[in-house]
Parts: sequence; structure tokens; C-alpha cells
Amino acid sequence: MDYEVFDLGDVRLQRGATLRDAKLAYKTYGELNAAKDNAIVYPTWYSGQHYDNEWLIGEGMALDPSRYFVIIPNMLGNGLSSSPSNTPEPHDRARFPEVTMHDNVRLQHRLVTERFGIERLELVTGWSMGAGQTYQWALSYPEMVRRILPFCGSAKTSLHNFVFLEGVKAALTADAQWHHGWYREQPVTGLRAMARVYAGWGFCQQFYREQIYSREPLGYGSLEDFLVGFWEGLFLKRDANNLLTMLWTWQHADLGGTPGYAGVEDALAGIRAMTIIMPGEQDLYFPPEDNEWEQARIPGAELRVIPGAWGHFAGGGLNPVDTAFIDDALKELLDREAPF
Amino acid sequence: MDYEVFDLGDVRLQRGATLRDAKLAYKTYGELNAAKDNAIVYPTWYSGQHYDNEWLIGEGMALDPSRYFVIIPNMLGNGLSSSPSNTPEPHDRARFPEVTMHDNVRLQHRLVTERFGIERLELVTGWSMGAGQTYQWALSYPEMVRRILPFCGSAKTSLHNFVFLEGVKAALTADAQWHHGWYREQPVTGLRAMARVYAGWGFCQQFYREQIYSREPLGYGSLEDFLVGFWEGLFLKRDANNLLTMLWTWQHADLGGTPGYAGVEDALAGIRAMTIIMPGEQDLYFPPEDNEWEQARIPGAELRVIPGAWGHFAGGGLNPVDTAFIDDALKELLDREAPF
Repeated sequence: MDYEVFDLGDVRLQRGATLRDAKLAYKTYGELNAAKDNAIVYPTWYSGQHYDNEWLIGEGMALDPSRYFVIIPNMLGNGLSSSPSNTPEPHDRARFPEVTMHDNVRLQHRLVTERFGIERLELVTGWSMGAGQTYQWALSYPEMVRRILPFCGSAKTSLHNFVFLEGVKAALTADAQWHHGWYREQPVTGLRAMARVYAGWGFCQQFYREQIYSREPLGYGSLEDFLVGFWEGLFLKRDANNLLTMLWTWQHADLGGTPGYAGVEDALAGIRAMTIIMPGEQDLYFPPEDNEWEQARIPGAELRVIPGAWGHFAGGGLNPVDTAFIDDALKELLDREAPF
Repeated sequence: MDYEVFDLGDVRLQRGATLRDAKLAYKTYGELNAAKDNAIVYPTWYSGQHYDNEWLIGEGMALDPSRYFVIIPNMLGNGLSSSPSNTPEPHDRARFPEVTMHDNVRLQHRLVTERFGIERLELVTGWSMGAGQTYQWALSYPEMVRRILPFCGSAKTSLHNFVFLEGVKAALTADAQWHHGWYREQPVTGLRAMARVYAGWGFCQQFYREQIYSREPLGYGSLEDFLVGFWEGLFLKRDANNLLTMLWTWQHADLGGTPGYAGVEDALAGIRAMTIIMPGEQDLYFPPEDNEWEQARIPGAELRVIPGAWGHFAGGGLNPVDTAFIDDALKELLDREAPF
């Protein structure tokens, strides 16, 4: 086991359920300094686990463990933190409660403050649903978060994004072996089906037109090889109930649902962190237009589009060009004098 | 029964199978004149039947039945022409053979020439897979087709479009009730799942962002109402094997596979008809970029983008603005002096 677990005890969730004996799995990189002012939080994405985030951490990179203390908290439902697959009866499997972005961040805040005694974060950043948690950090703890760089995500799940996820969910649950969550074995036909549905969304038209999957750094032998090797492989190693729990969190992500705010517009105006929002130029479900709308409402925020043909996976750490582009922006943001 | 059936006899298909006692269902509008020079062919689209095309036909419109003789041939596999659902054993259901765009058009050509004795077509036009048949008409019978106006379609199915269809297919076939095509009752869970997958593709981000589904002329009460009422309703009335037959035709559509041509570039250069190609500005699976590429290769072709937020369904006849835009282009094209 290459990660730690923080015991949260019984947790009352935003939608009303109590998650008993809740666990937050996390991993840290680098050392927390004596002043406790070099910490960065970097949440995970849909189906991802902490090690899937490591491509953005390294010597000489913005997230340099010789300089910063990087905490990767695993999202609830991802199979390492409390999830349908690892929670005991009676809240296991199909009975695992509904979890919001707000819940995730509130529990991560407890980890950061109670376990480490950290009062300021130099940065929160994340990809996709990790970006959603990033916005939530900035809003929920404005006095604590100096900078944010959400990439390929949004503060509120758009209706089109919601519909895309309806298709993913419908494909997974069309497999009768799913059995409304009470499966004896994973519904592998459904997992493979959801992977094929996802394939057209995760990368864009140009990515397929130019057969980028067949070239370095991916280098798949054919389109079918890519669909099986990359896409089916990605979801077959996950648990169906876990995927559905995170999907619910994603579909219902809404920064405007934060207590004390009257909708997402009001919430965005409440962000105090220095902000760079980075959409992928051809992201099909987090399109740049949605981030433009946000950028205009967050005080002082900058929008910086990741150019190129990798769609949503511009933020997935799969190619060195996009990684360098994101890393450069992180360096620039970390070098800026924060307002507090 | 509001249509006619043309008996084709035994037909050898492009991929080798023989479709025995093949039937082509069609409907005509208006009268063929004595010179037989006022005919228009207007093929159907994925899952559509002839009556689904009628929105583009009417007094005062380009396709005016008081002036033109409009023939709508039903695509093979659509449930009216020879299809898995209506072909007797042994070529019924899961044994129905693979049908290409080329096959469809060759049989439509027999209808037009053998049944009606027509030697020249004023126009071929169609939406989506109907557009694919339109390109094929122009290439297969260059001396016969004066003008074409394919809208929201392509001459060759792109790899991204292929992947989108993989997702649709995977969702439908994840339902065990499908039983590899030997179902006793329709796999309704799979049909509903494929409908939800399709929903995010058929309309674009802006369409959902602005909740256009909730306004006139659609006027659905909620997003869920639209997903069930429009999308699930669209596919639940179809037969699963029929849908899979047409999906195969779509995935393998390639004008460049026409005998005598060395790929799609060569094929496009062989089109002699006066051509206006009309993509929907925000069509997610037939994006304008793919039509631009074609337009540059068809001698004298014009590209005219249908503006707006209706995605692929800009060509679906659902709103009067897009209908008028397409109708205007058809009028303009029909008014142009053809080269022969």
C-alpha cells in the first residue's frame, strides 16, 4: 500500500446521509516545511487514483517535491477513500450514499488542517473532476487558498455534460449483470460498453481524424486496439458502483449549491484566489466556452486555453507537449505574489 | 400503407451476399412530366422512414410537388425496404447481410430507371445518411445527376464518427435481451440506453446550455422529459437488428470504395453534379471541417454552413429557421443552369 488513510469518523453528508467510519486515502510528496506554508492540494479525477496524478509532480516541475508538500487526496468513491466497494454493510454497494463535491472538499479540508495543521495552501489544482474540487476549495476556504489552477473542468456541470454522462451511465447499467448494484461479479459487458461510449467524448474529432492514437506517445496498433487497450482497460479495472457514485458526484457538481451562495454566478464572484483556468481547446464536454463564462465572473481570473487535438485528455498527462504547457502555467502562477 | 414497393428480385450485394427477393419501399410526391426531366431523389436517414422526410416537401418550397416529381426511397434496413425485421428465413434477423451505401444507391437507381424510365435527375438531396447516399448517387451515375445538396453528412464516415457509433452499438448490445440478434422481444433497455448515448451527440453543447429543448418548437417540460420523450421515443419504435444493419452501413460508408476509384479523394474528384454541401455549424459527428475537405476536392462545389445551435439536427426538420435556410439553398441550386 503506497498511501495513507485518514480516519474521519462518522460524517454527515450534504444530502443528509451519514457516512460512518469514513476514510480518506491520500498520498503526499515532499516535506511540509516548519512554517507549514509550502502545501499544495491536487485532487483526483473521475475513476483516477492518486498515482494517476503523479505525471504532474517531479524535480524541476512546478509541483517540485523538493520545494512543495503536495497532497493528493483520493476522491470519495474512487475505491481507495470510502467507496461502495470498501464500505461495510449496511452502507455498502448500491446503498452507498450520494456524495457531493462539497463533501469531498470539506473532508479534504479536515485532512489538511487536522492531520497536518496547515492554514494556508499555496495552490489547489486538478484535472476534470479534480478541477471541480479545485473551484470548491477556493470558494469554501477563501482565506486559505492562495492560488487555483483548474484544468479541463468546470464549477458547475453543464447540461450537455450531464447528458453525456447519462449515456455513459445508461451503457453501464444496460448490462443486466449490474443488477442495480447488487452484482456478484463486475458487469464487464456494461463496463466495456461505457468505455466505448466514453471513447468518442474523451478525445475529439481531430484526434481521431489524424489517428493520433497510433503515433507516439500512445502508439496503438489500430483504432480497435486503442478502444480495447486504452478505453476498455481504463474502466474494466474499476468497480461499477464506484463509477456510478463518482458519476453522481459529477452530474450534480454545482459550486452554486455551496451553503451561503445564491447560485453559481454568486459563488464564482466569491472566489478570492489568484486563478488561471485552463480548458482544452477541443474538449467536448468541458468546452472552453463554459470556462470563459466562469472566468468573466471570478475576480481577476485568467483563461488560458491548452491548444491542440487531445480533447479532454489535454489534461490527462498523456503527452509531453500538453504537460509542459500546463506545468509552465503552474510555475507562472506559483511565482506570482499572492494577495495574502 | 402509404407507400409502394418495388420488387428487385435476387440482388448480389457489394460485400458478396445475395439478398433474395429484395424489396425497395418508396413514396412519390407530385407527377412525373412527359419529358421525365423533373425528378428528384431524396433518400432517408438513420432509422428514418419516408414520412420523416416530408418536412422538406411542400407547395412553395424548393421540393414543390406541383413542379417536381420527388421520390423518397427507404434505405435498406429501415424496416420498410428489405430489413432484418421483414426478410424471411434464412436471411432474417441476425443473418441479414451487410449492406453498403453503394448497394442502396444501385437499387434506388433500378427503381428510378426500371420503374419510372427516368434518365436525368434534377437533384439528389438528403440528410445525414441520406447525404451519404446523395454523394454516392453523384459518383455512381455522373451522367444522370445534375445537382446534389447533401446536408449534415459526409462522403466517408470519419474515424471519430465511427467511434461515436461504436458507443451507440455497445449500449444497445449491452442488453442481454438483445441475444446477438435472436431476441424474442425488443431489447428495450438497450434501445433506451442507445437513445441516451445518442442524445449528447445529436444536439450540441449550446443547444443544451440554452435549454432549447424546453422552448418552442420543441417545448419539452424538462431535460428528462426530452431524453425520454424525444430520444427514447425515437429508438423504441425501431427494431434492434434493423438499427444495427443501418449502423453497419453508416460505419462502413466510403465513397472511395466505389468500384473504379482509388479512395475517397479520387472519388470526390469524379463528381460532376453541381454541388452545395451543407453542414450544421455545430454538428458533433459530421463537423464542417470534414465537409470543407470534401468541398475542396469536388469540382466547383460550394460549402454553405447552416448556422445555429441545433447540432446535427439542424438538418432534421425540427425548426422553421433551419428548414428555411436549407430550402433557400435548394431553390438557389435548382435555379442554376446545370451543365447537362
